[in-house]
Amino acid sequence: MADVPEGKRITGRTKIFFLLADPVGHVVGTAVLNAHFERAGIDFAASPVHVRPDDLATVLAAARVTRNLAGLGITIPHKIAILPLLDEVTDRGRRVGAVNFVRRDPDGRLVGDNVDGIGFATGLARHGVEVAGRRVVQAGAGGVGRAIAFALAEAGAASLGIANRDAAKAAALAAAVRAAFPGCDARPAAATARGADVAVNCTSLGMRDGDALPLDLDGIRPGAAVAEVVMTPATTPLLAEADRRGCRTVPGRVMLDEQMALVQAFLGL
Amino acid sequence: MADVPEGKRITGRTKIFFLLADPVGHVVGTAVLNAHFERAGIDFAASPVHVRPDDLATVLAAARVTRNLAGLGITIPHKIAILPLLDEVTDRGRRVGAVNFVRRDPDGRLVGDNVDGIGFATGLARHGVEVAGRRVVQAGAGGVGRAIAFALAEAGAASLGIANRDAAKAAALAAAVRAAFPGCDARPAAATARGADVAVNCTSLGMRDGDALPLDLDGIRPGAAVAEVVMTPATTPLLAEADRRGCRTVPGRVMLDEQMALVQAFLGL
Repeated sequence: MADVPEGKRITGRTKIFFLLADPVGHVVGTAVLNAHFERAGIDFAASPVHVRPDDLATVLAAARVTRNLAGLGITIPHKIAILPLLDEVTDRGRRVGAVNFVRRDPDGRLVGDNVDGIGFATGLARHGVEVAGRRVVQAGAGGVGRAIAFALAEAGAASLGIANRDAAKAAALAAAVRAAFPGCDARPAAATARGADVAVNCTSLGMRDGDALPLDLDGIRPGAAVAEVVMTPATTPLLAEADRRGCRTVPGRVMLDEQMALVQAFLGL
Repeated sequence: MADVPEGKRITGRTKIFFLLADPVGHVVGTAVLNAHFERAGIDFAASPVHVRPDDLATVLAAARVTRNLAGLGITIPHKIAILPLLDEVTDRGRRVGAVNFVRRDPDGRLVGDNVDGIGFATGLARHGVEVAGRRVVQAGAGGVGRAIAFALAEAGAASLGIANRDAAKAAALAAAVRAAFPGCDARPAAATARGADVAVNCTSLGMRDGDALPLDLDGIRPGAAVAEVVMTPATTPLLAEADRRGCRTVPGRVMLDEQMALVQAFLGL
């Protein structure tokens, strides 16, 4: 059609992608994915799909028979519930116990993965932050925290201190990380970066005015790295404090940018 | 996200829409719909969904539980097969025996309609072509021809001659139109516009070089109207010939433009 601008066209040649969420109103991941693929020159369109937990299997059945579907993005509250409904889950996804991307193979098989952690670890490497052999401390043992803990251990962290308000959750995650990666001395820990080479915030602290710092930076050595998962604001109080102390800082946005490239590869696009 | 241009954003607030087709590669209707809704300032994104006939019920089950889905567009080969799978079909859709748009109501009910005919008839009216009380002849008794025949009768055509290569199909359509609209003298007819006030091409003749004219325009009176469903080329040989004879002409694109507004109203957007 002559009056449809080329750049905005979604046609029968476009690879489609659904981001499953409930609720859906706050979702912006579709826009981020679409911007990435547009920059990459790939004809792709991600749409949000609002699906309730009880209806997840029904939507996955349709995904299997939707032949131009590249895959699915999975977000709250489906990341854990989706595991038994998939045809295959990568080792990475099974270790984390949560899936955030699903590929649709040409035969309709749905393969789940979790690229939160590898996105984060790849972002650190790209910013010159070495993890192999280093002492790492992280705050948070929730969904993203689990993904990042396994990825840091897989990247060769010598030790990993996990600080979490619910200490039992930190201990359980530490034990799971040690079991998967015996070379990494993962332990529950206090919320301090003292003596760490790399300190990571995997909580949502820093998003809201007046939030406490997720990690106490007293005693962190200048030259250590401090990294965030919080994306808004770009400079969290933790990063500002790290900067004052002469640490290197890695903003939360880095994880998302790296994930886009990883998702593109995972989907085979 | 600051780096996603506003105009191209598909987010959790976007109303989504799927156009079901098999094959899917040639589909441009999604781009036409998206351009229409963008002009109308409505946050909407249509994606093509490639679904095989055997999988149609599976995809409709997911459509019922996709809570941000405005509706579905239905194209080849699903327009007829979908009828028994829907929760409701408008009188118009049932008369035509084919559905091209489906609305998803908030409770998940799927309601089918067919706006091919009403789009065409509305386009004629907007171009000042009166149908009520007039003698109309149309070529074609296929899917689009059926939709247009009922719409012309509903618009008050005094008579409707239906020319079709398969004469039995023309006779069956004429009988169905008379049964639904007894005030319209619908009959199978020869492929000539002689004596007609309005002549309509509902076949694909005119799309390819060397196609025969769908209707013989000998004896059509100057001032009569000749209308097309063929959109490419914009000026078909039939319209060029009609213009030479001093007839008013209505290009095929008009039907599509009118349908966009009708679809928007039908979907409640």
